[in-house]
Amino acid sequence: MNICYTFYMDTDERFTDGRVPDAKIRILFQDEHRWQRWLDVEAALAVAEAELDIIPVEAAEAIKEWSDIRKLDIERIREGRRKNSHKIMSLVTELSNAVGDPHGGWVHWGATAENIHRTGDMLLLREVHYVLLDLIGQSFSAMASLAQKGEDMVCAGRTHGQQAVPITFGFVVAGWIDEFSRHVDRLHEIEPRIFTAMMGGAVGNYASLGEKGPKVQAKMAQLLDLHPMAVPSRAMSDAQAEYVCILGLLAGTTGKIAKEISLLMQTELAEVYEPMPKGTISSSTMPHKRNPQLADDCIAFSAEVRALVPLALEGMLHDYEVNGANTTMTDDAIKRACILTGDTLTRLIVILSGLELNEDRMRSNLEITGGLLSSEAIMLSLGKVIGRQHAHEVVYEDAQESAIDKKPFKEILLHDHRVTDCLDEDTLSRLLDPATKIGLSAKISRDGAQKAHKFAEELQHKGNHGLMKEDRIHMSVLHNVQKLHN
Amino acid sequence: MNICYTFYMDTDERFTDGRVPDAKIRILFQDEHRWQRWLDVEAALAVAEAELDIIPVEAAEAIKEWSDIRKLDIERIREGRRKNSHKIMSLVTELSNAVGDPHGGWVHWGATAENIHRTGDMLLLREVHYVLLDLIGQSFSAMASLAQKGEDMVCAGRTHGQQAVPITFGFVVAGWIDEFSRHVDRLHEIEPRIFTAMMGGAVGNYASLGEKGPKVQAKMAQLLDLHPMAVPSRAMSDAQAEYVCILGLLAGTTGKIAKEISLLMQTELAEVYEPMPKGTISSSTMPHKRNPQLADDCIAFSAEVRALVPLALEGMLHDYEVNGANTTMTDDAIKRACILTGDTLTRLIVILSGLELNEDRMRSNLEITGGLLSSEAIMLSLGKVIGRQHAHEVVYEDAQESAIDKKPFKEILLHDHRVTDCLDEDTLSRLLDPATKIGLSAKISRDGAQKAHKFAEELQHKGNHGLMKEDRIHMSVLHNVQKLHN
Amino acid sequence: MNICYTFYMDTDERFTDGRVPDAKIRILFQDEHRWQRWLDVEAALAVAEAELDIIPVEAAEAIKEWSDIRKLDIERIREGRRKNSHKIMSLVTELSNAVGDPHGGWVHWGATAENIHRTGDMLLLREVHYVLLDLIGQSFSAMASLAQKGEDMVCAGRTHGQQAVPITFGFVVAGWIDEFSRHVDRLHEIEPRIFTAMMGGAVGNYASLGEKGPKVQAKMAQLLDLHPMAVPSRAMSDAQAEYVCILGLLAGTTGKIAKEISLLMQTELAEVYEPMPKGTISSSTMPHKRNPQLADDCIAFSAEVRALVPLALEGMLHDYEVNGANTTMTDDAIKRACILTGDTLTRLIVILSGLELNEDRMRSNLEITGGLLSSEAIMLSLGKVIGRQHAHEVVYEDAQESAIDKKPFKEILLHDHRVTDCLDEDTLSRLLDPATKIGLSAKISRDGAQKAHKFAEELQHKGNHGLMKEDRIHMSVLHNVQKLHN
Amino acid sequence: MNICYTFYMDTDERFTDGRVPDAKIRILFQDEHRWQRWLDVEAALAVAEAELDIIPVEAAEAIKEWSDIRKLDIERIREGRRKNSHKIMSLVTELSNAVGDPHGGWVHWGATAENIHRTGDMLLLREVHYVLLDLIGQSFSAMASLAQKGEDMVCAGRTHGQQAVPITFGFVVAGWIDEFSRHVDRLHEIEPRIFTAMMGGAVGNYASLGEKGPKVQAKMAQLLDLHPMAVPSRAMSDAQAEYVCILGLLAGTTGKIAKEISLLMQTELAEVYEPMPKGTISSSTMPHKRNPQLADDCIAFSAEVRALVPLALEGMLHDYEVNGANTTMTDDAIKRACILTGDTLTRLIVILSGLELNEDRMRSNLEITGGLLSSEAIMLSLGKVIGRQHAHEVVYEDAQESAIDKKPFKEILLHDHRVTDCLDEDTLSRLLDPATKIGLSAKISRDGAQKAHKFAEELQHKGNHGLMKEDRIHMSVLHNVQKLHN
Repeated sequence: MNICYTFYMDTDERFTDGRVPDAKIRILFQDEHRWQRWLDVEAALAVAEAELDIIPVEAAEAIKEWSDIRKLDIERIREGRRKNSHKIMSLVTELSNAVGDPHGGWVHWGATAENIHRTGDMLLLREVHYVLLDLIGQSFSAMASLAQKGEDMVCAGRTHGQQAVPITFGFVVAGWIDEFSRHVDRLHEIEPRIFTAMMGGAVGNYASLGEKGPKVQAKMAQLLDLHPMAVPSRAMSDAQAEYVCILGLLAGTTGKIAKEISLLMQTELAEVYEPMPKGTISSSTMPHKRNPQLADDCIAFSAEVRALVPLALEGMLHDYEVNGANTTMTDDAIKRACILTGDTLTRLIVILSGLELNEDRMRSNLEITGGLLSSEAIMLSLGKVIGRQHAHEVVYEDAQESAIDKKPFKEILLHDHRVTDCLDEDTLSRLLDPATKIGLSAKISRDGAQKAHKFAEELQHKGNHGLMKEDRIHMSVLHNVQKLHN
Repeated sequence: MNICYTFYMDTDERFTDGRVPDAKIRILFQDEHRWQRWLDVEAALAVAEAELDIIPVEAAEAIKEWSDIRKLDIERIREGRRKNSHKIMSLVTELSNAVGDPHGGWVHWGATAENIHRTGDMLLLREVHYVLLDLIGQSFSAMASLAQKGEDMVCAGRTHGQQAVPITFGFVVAGWIDEFSRHVDRLHEIEPRIFTAMMGGAVGNYASLGEKGPKVQAKMAQLLDLHPMAVPSRAMSDAQAEYVCILGLLAGTTGKIAKEISLLMQTELAEVYEPMPKGTISSSTMPHKRNPQLADDCIAFSAEVRALVPLALEGMLHDYEVNGANTTMTDDAIKRACILTGDTLTRLIVILSGLELNEDRMRSNLEITGGLLSSEAIMLSLGKVIGRQHAHEVVYEDAQESAIDKKPFKEILLHDHRVTDCLDEDTLSRLLDPATKIGLSAKISRDGAQKAHKFAEELQHKGNHGLMKEDRIHMSVLHNVQKLHN
Repeated sequence: MNICYTFYMDTDERFTDGRVPDAKIRILFQDEHRWQRWLDVEAALAVAEAELDIIPVEAAEAIKEWSDIRKLDIERIREGRRKNSHKIMSLVTELSNAVGDPHGGWVHWGATAENIHRTGDMLLLREVHYVLLDLIGQSFSAMASLAQKGEDMVCAGRTHGQQAVPITFGFVVAGWIDEFSRHVDRLHEIEPRIFTAMMGGAVGNYASLGEKGPKVQAKMAQLLDLHPMAVPSRAMSDAQAEYVCILGLLAGTTGKIAKEISLLMQTELAEVYEPMPKGTISSSTMPHKRNPQLADDCIAFSAEVRALVPLALEGMLHDYEVNGANTTMTDDAIKRACILTGDTLTRLIVILSGLELNEDRMRSNLEITGGLLSSEAIMLSLGKVIGRQHAHEVVYEDAQESAIDKKPFKEILLHDHRVTDCLDEDTLSRLLDPATKIGLSAKISRDGAQKAHKFAEELQHKGNHGLMKEDRIHMSVLHNVQKLHN
Repeated sequence: MNICYTFYMDTDERFTDGRVPDAKIRILFQDEHRWQRWLDVEAALAVAEAELDIIPVEAAEAIKEWSDIRKLDIERIREGRRKNSHKIMSLVTELSNAVGDPHGGWVHWGATAENIHRTGDMLLLREVHYVLLDLIGQSFSAMASLAQKGEDMVCAGRTHGQQAVPITFGFVVAGWIDEFSRHVDRLHEIEPRIFTAMMGGAVGNYASLGEKGPKVQAKMAQLLDLHPMAVPSRAMSDAQAEYVCILGLLAGTTGKIAKEISLLMQTELAEVYEPMPKGTISSSTMPHKRNPQLADDCIAFSAEVRALVPLALEGMLHDYEVNGANTTMTDDAIKRACILTGDTLTRLIVILSGLELNEDRMRSNLEITGGLLSSEAIMLSLGKVIGRQHAHEVVYEDAQESAIDKKPFKEILLHDHRVTDCLDEDTLSRLLDPATKIGLSAKISRDGAQKAHKFAEELQHKGNHGLMKEDRIHMSVLHNVQKLHN
């Protein structure tokens, strides 16, 4: 094998990456950033223990001071890990050495490795969470505009791929908004369950800290704005698995939206188009093609996120007080699901913000069936006179004749005395006009847009605010030490 | 193929079925019961429409009167379905004919088939939900007793399959209780999202009922104690998929518990035993065997439920305004997940209620390592004198020597002056006694038992109460017609 | 809960079942049939052991005589199972009692339960296998006709949902045939791996039979026309998992075909139609609808079978020498995957045999793009003069202009001197005619049809022949005893 | 968010990476290497087309000359891709420009992008395939040694976690070898199905090359030592999905082996130990721990690979003639499954090569049941006198009494006259000695070791040979041009 590349690079780059901004999630999972979050926990632990008179205040202060990845030797940590095959020991050693005598020995006091990295990973995940909320907010913003734009655009409603009754395009978007809004509820509801601090020692029974254990955990949690765990067992990953489930549910919706756009872009429908910047090439051989490139990405990523859900669920089946294999399954499922969700949402925002709506084609597609689309309306009107069941039979027969003999539906109706005995031609014409049959599509669109605007604002605020708060947490821990000291 | 059996029977019977009561969930999904729930919806729809002056009160009364599966010809409905290949039309026709002229024509007025069967299926699912809550309540009850019983039973805590530090058995159960309690939160939180009434017509835009549509849906929902859908689109199954996710998460926990029991039953550990009634045979060739039969079932069903989650998620990807394939995926995933969850919980209750705890073996297993299990305690004591890092190195070396040379840990420690300089023999002996090192295991057990008792009571109440309410709903719809009429 | 139904019935009935014949697979998994296959193994075991002088010939003869489920008391077996919670013990006891003294004691000699039921299940699976091969044969037959019928029907080839270049409909079917043909190869290749006899005793090391063990297994295998296992370990289910994988792959193809048909049935395309017998109702409210009911079933079942693959794979992870949970996972995955595959193939055969092809719509759809579909042909012709890259740029610009300004492609080309400098109007017109651009579509269709005919014949022969052979196996075991005896 | 890292780095590094060599698979999927394989296809295409008089020989020669990634501007290709959002166009353009006038225009002649990258990806996958075969060969080598080493080491066979009957450790390994050997068969059988060349143009009907199309594809395939596709449709990924299935099956086995080792390492069993190099730290707080770190990795990766199988199967459901989303699913599933399989096998080789076997503990564990393990042997001996059913009852009662009353089994047997009437004490003692009851365990171990040695040699040869051949392919294409030219 002639391979001479000198270092390993990301192989995840997509050919569409140039068309979308980076979601900024991948970078949060990098070692350096992750380690900083772990250091935040070491610092908070030290402060909490100092406050509870377990370690000297000076030690806590020193540990806090050095819990800054920029002050540590990253290469030495990495090298140490390679040698001792331990997730965090070399980081702890580096920190301990940096703090030096006499305080270095108090680093990591009473903690087990997983207490630190799992709590730190929750800080990291919370940052990802805020990034995702912000991206979801931006998605709502784009959907709000779309729902408004398509409020009155009459198009075919389709069930089982068959034109059914007329709707407006905004109604479709209102459905997406409704589904998205429940994902937001889910993401809010999980917060107290997942953003937790764990400080129960090797197996979660506070063996190392004893009676003071729960207090240390509570104080540490407070410093990090996390919830203390009721039972700080390492064998529990239900909340993480649930998070992946929620991302899986979100992927169900993003996949549906992307698939819908891709279907509506079919040459024969051509009702909407994903934006295609100048210079983009869909096909090297068919210059006319406008492929749903980003929608395709979203569909693929939806499948990939959904495929991670069983992994996260399998991760829950720890043996005894913890099992390393399960921890790895859980961590990998979370990481990949978050990264893929970010990549999906950035694409979705680009698609929805720039979606071209082709009102003419929506209209002309409605006319393909020659009025069959109004069969329900005719049946209901007829039903008022001859009863619903009889009406269904009459209209069913006429509709089948129209479809099979390829004759206009109206013509057949006008020749069926069972129909003309009850409805005159004017009434029939009115009933056959799709625009009069859209029900409350427009109102539902408006309500959806309003709801989406509200969500957009709230989530972008919460997301940005949250990210700022994360930075403050780092600072507040520091401040706390100072206060204690004085 | 020589096959001469005259009718198809269930092939799902398990050889362990004789050991557990039936969960009573399978039967809820039978056609007859399901159809009754659909009829409840037809009745509620008629009543709601009568109240809103859409159909005559007399029609509603008649429809209500006949919306009783016991009064209809089940074989004719089934035969009709076989002929028309439609999920509900033959039921509607049967009801319509039973009501007869002049009111029969008002049956199903303005509804599309899926409005009825999806809303009815939600009524059915709510019954299943109450059955599950009751079973979960019973599980809590069994776990509460176990946590109390094992409160002070000292045993080995194990991480990565290796004995780590001592705990009590009750602590393990407290972890299960904690995880179960979050599933209850999830099951409560989903209720308003999933128990919804849909009455938006063919594609969900109220085309058939117009302005009155939302009112009909709201009234119908109220009669059935459901929540009206904001956008009654048929293309949304996020709530159903979420329900399967929650059952998947629950399966993560039940699988974990069952696996734990099965591991603790290993001949070499023998700390607990699944109850085995007289007459049960584990092996046809090895008469001494006591296999974890029910635990094995639970582990297998856990895998089966988890495998349904991706199906439910894939079901979300509807095309356009609805797709029949996706509806089938969703319905099948829900049905099987519920049935399997019921079969799991009944088994789990039998296991947990009758679990034999072998305190002697718990104790003797703790002595296998000759004190290595106390290495953390020794390291921490030593660390107070020589610092945590140095202490780790010293104890690590002695522990490795003990493991490799198979010498008692204590003996090695007593010959290591780095240890004896700091700790005398009495202190060492105390540190090496596992019973002194269980941390807050007992307190956590007690708290868990208390929590579990509370949940047990609440859930069994809610479950039973809920099932009674479901019966009342049927009645209240009837009552409503009477009131309207007078 | 008011439930008063007296016995549990199948809840798996589909509303479309009336439109398709039963696959006859469900019934093979019923207890009675399954038990007969287990009895066949008990008989073969006895015969083999008699031949190797392990048990008396008379005993083997008696056991063979009574290994007939029709002679045993099914209710007593079922009742026994309920009491002893053992998969097979009560069947063995019933057989043993039926044989009576002095030979009854030789029943099941040296066997462990799983030796019998796993080997019997393989006989059962082989019957299913033959049924599936026959159904696949019938599918090939339908595809062969379709490929011939559509050989010259010009239609749009579409990539990413966008019309790309013209093909014929037969070409599409040839692709399905090609994919199916590889599934047949897979199903053939797995036969020696999966159709195996296991007779290694409790853990597979022939402890009970010693040196004669492998000979007994070999003889028993020969009697049943199975392959003896190299290592008769019960902890191996790779072949069963592989079988589910192959059904998963087949489901990938059947799902693709069904989805394709469903897409081509979209109102806007209307190129093909699933047959719809008179009396079938697609919608209770929209009488004109012709839904892809059976195609939808196939799509849903595809998802369900695919979702069973991870279950079968997880089933492989046995602990130690066998784990009951894994056996259950494997057995359930196999059973459901086989049943669902049968239900899929019967539907697919109905769809493909009756598929309506709408040549007019295929043609008219091709004209939607106003010639854009021929852009590749024009680019290639142009490329011969000005080079491929330049040609791509020119045609790309003109195609984009046509799409954006909605002007006919030909008109734009005729106004672009970069084009007209190289190609005259006649050449352009010829290049723009789709029928001249179908490449080898027709030839590929013909080759496909021929291949499919060959497969159809072979598989239907092999399937039917196989099923007859299974019946003969039962007889030959009997015959063998006779021979031995004389 | 304070993020200031300048470039994205791999986040896939594991803390155990320092303990295992790199599998060298990740690097094969890097852009540069992948592009080289695509260039190989461009070269082969040009050569094939020259040979068939479609493009000038000089053009083919020039294209071949420049089809070398080292001669092209990688940054420009990457930049071009970012701009045009096309997977391969910027590489083609770069190659075309490098070749320059007059031959550059012949680059990619008649091809569609996917023809090139899919065929190239198959070349890449074949390299991965050879690497995997080599790693599997090394695994066989390690298993062969283990099977030999453990040939006569008597230990407990366990079913359902319960000690069942004695085996030798080598017997367990022989089971692994047997299962692995079938994976090799699968990997061989798939070769002709997956290593295929595709050159059918935009949709696979040879529209661009016409009658010469199949010949070009055949020639190109021959140059690359691939099989030509029967129907070169882009909508087929059954072979790729099958490859992922096979890796999923392999993951079933590697997961099983790793789980087994992890179970046997449990403190209470301690029969085997994963090697642990000096300096490795299992726990930051429990210095005595020896965690199954690499086994845990293997278990986790097994779950991750298995979770990719449904993704690959879902990838098969292309719409129409191809769908980009499905291609992405397939490609991502393949890539990740291969990388994870490589990481698994390297770990497995380290584990198996260095596995410590603790014969003393195997022996002492066998004595835990006080002879219960021999109940089958006693039952069979007893059965010869009093019949199998009666014997089962007697031994079952005695075994239960022994287990419940915790009295030695032998003692109880000696006090049961039903036993002593038939068997004397000497016979009983002999029957209770586990070493006499291992059946053919040792022979099966030996056979397994022999088989494994053979496979080891063959696969390492095939793997290394294959990789050399891949390098030659690059050369031979070049050579071919020369020959043509002369």
